[in-house]
Amino acid sequence: MQKYDADAALAVQYLSQTAKAVELKFDELLPSEQEEPKRLHEAMRYSMFAGGKRLRPALVKAAFELFGGTGDSVWYAMSALEMLHTFSLIHDDLPCVDNDDMRRGKPTAHKKYGEATAVLSGDALCILAFELMAKTGNARAIEILARKLGTFGMLGGEMRDVECEGKTVSLAEVDYIHYHKTAALIEASLCIGAELASATEEQVASIQKFGKSIGLAFQVVDDILDVISTTEQLGKDAGSDEERGKATYPSVIGLEASRERANALYKEAIAELDSLPGDTSVLRSIAAFIVTRVN
Amino acid sequence: MQKYDADAALAVQYLSQTAKAVELKFDELLPSEQEEPKRLHEAMRYSMFAGGKRLRPALVKAAFELFGGTGDSVWYAMSALEMLHTFSLIHDDLPCVDNDDMRRGKPTAHKKYGEATAVLSGDALCILAFELMAKTGNARAIEILARKLGTFGMLGGEMRDVECEGKTVSLAEVDYIHYHKTAALIEASLCIGAELASATEEQVASIQKFGKSIGLAFQVVDDILDVISTTEQLGKDAGSDEERGKATYPSVIGLEASRERANALYKEAIAELDSLPGDTSVLRSIAAFIVTRVN
Repeated sequence: MQKYDADAALAVQYLSQTAKAVELKFDELLPSEQEEPKRLHEAMRYSMFAGGKRLRPALVKAAFELFGGTGDSVWYAMSALEMLHTFSLIHDDLPCVDNDDMRRGKPTAHKKYGEATAVLSGDALCILAFELMAKTGNARAIEILARKLGTFGMLGGEMRDVECEGKTVSLAEVDYIHYHKTAALIEASLCIGAELASATEEQVASIQKFGKSIGLAFQVVDDILDVISTTEQLGKDAGSDEERGKATYPSVIGLEASRERANALYKEAIAELDSLPGDTSVLRSIAAFIVTRVN
Repeated sequence: MQKYDADAALAVQYLSQTAKAVELKFDELLPSEQEEPKRLHEAMRYSMFAGGKRLRPALVKAAFELFGGTGDSVWYAMSALEMLHTFSLIHDDLPCVDNDDMRRGKPTAHKKYGEATAVLSGDALCILAFELMAKTGNARAIEILARKLGTFGMLGGEMRDVECEGKTVSLAEVDYIHYHKTAALIEASLCIGAELASATEEQVASIQKFGKSIGLAFQVVDDILDVISTTEQLGKDAGSDEERGKATYPSVIGLEASRERANALYKEAIAELDSLPGDTSVLRSIAAFIVTRVN
């Protein structure tokens, strides 16, 4: 693990700098709590400022920079990706879906504002994200994003996740759920950064493969952390996957094989970067960060 | 009313022809129930094929034709607008929002598929709508649409609607709610048809004013029908607005003044069309249809 730890340092720095900058953008782009509908705007801001690694904006930016992108419109896409991630968390946490009370150490949106406001604030973040994406003027990027978010992407994973709760599932099923639920939006972040930088189709395909590997690795590590961490460390209920009979890697292949899987995915991701030109050090480091993180 | 009845005949024909054609498009553009996530795809189709006037697609098409638009990409926008309308109905009907069991004479999505699937199927229709809009290649149209849907448009109206339930509200508040909840998406339909036909900014502004008037008129008539119709006629619970203490025109200004308001809005709408070139007969007829409809 030593090698990973060293590599992850650059990512930690990159993520923290990007988070700081993109959170200023959120404040600028999110509607004001002083304007009607005030409560809805407050709820959107509450969920957007509840913390988080801001991994998706960082991936948009890193891919954009790798392919030599210039200009400020990438910040719209970075903000949009975090809004979409937050939208999915708010709806996932609803009583009728995963029924989670805590997220990032704070009450979830529906706990704080009630269910109706939570549903509408998720909708509002999703729609605002598309408004911001439209400001980039890049319709192709919007199409890619919507595809990765929809029923053949993230929403498909969420649906199967709900359906499989409490059931015995195969590794193939867990792979389907985790690829769709988590990796699809991570892929999308990278592809959109690449698209906005006018990368070639081949380059977009390559960064997408990298995204698939680190996206799956991210979810494998999430599953592992849910088993081995405390609630305090996670900022959400630890051990909740098992309690609910969620489809996870540890539950299907065990902890040790899950760790091996995360490592194998890391190696696949790194190998994919070798085919790309330019300085891939930030993306390499983010891959290392993903498999070594503790929350 | 005689004059309206005569005018509305063209609209009835136009709406019925458009509905038939656009429903074939829905079938083509909605994901198949044979593909995973099957249940989610089934739920999307269920709500999309539950009937309805398909007013928004017809408005997209009528504006597109008025401004001399050519090409097939308008069908993506027509389909997207109906998907967005359906998305808003599904989330509005949820137990935590309006708690409606029936819609267009059928069980609502959450009654038929459960709440989790209803939430996700609404999300999925919203996201698919943006994917289809992206296929038009017109980022400006996407930006306009998202703006009209978001917290300064439709979602703002839904939020205030929920907040005002059971409270005494002013006419200004009812105007705010109804303009945002209903008229914004009707405006959007017309603006997007115009944008896709490369109408001038002035023309888009003019068609938007027309949309605002007929959109408000649509909701005033909806409120009136909720008071005077039977549940069978409406296909949803009649009298439910009053039961819930909803902010409506009849509850604030009475039935007769509401009728007068609908007529005044009709006249404003028609006057706006006078400033536009080309054959506005379809839009004139749709305006008449909106104020004379019985369900």
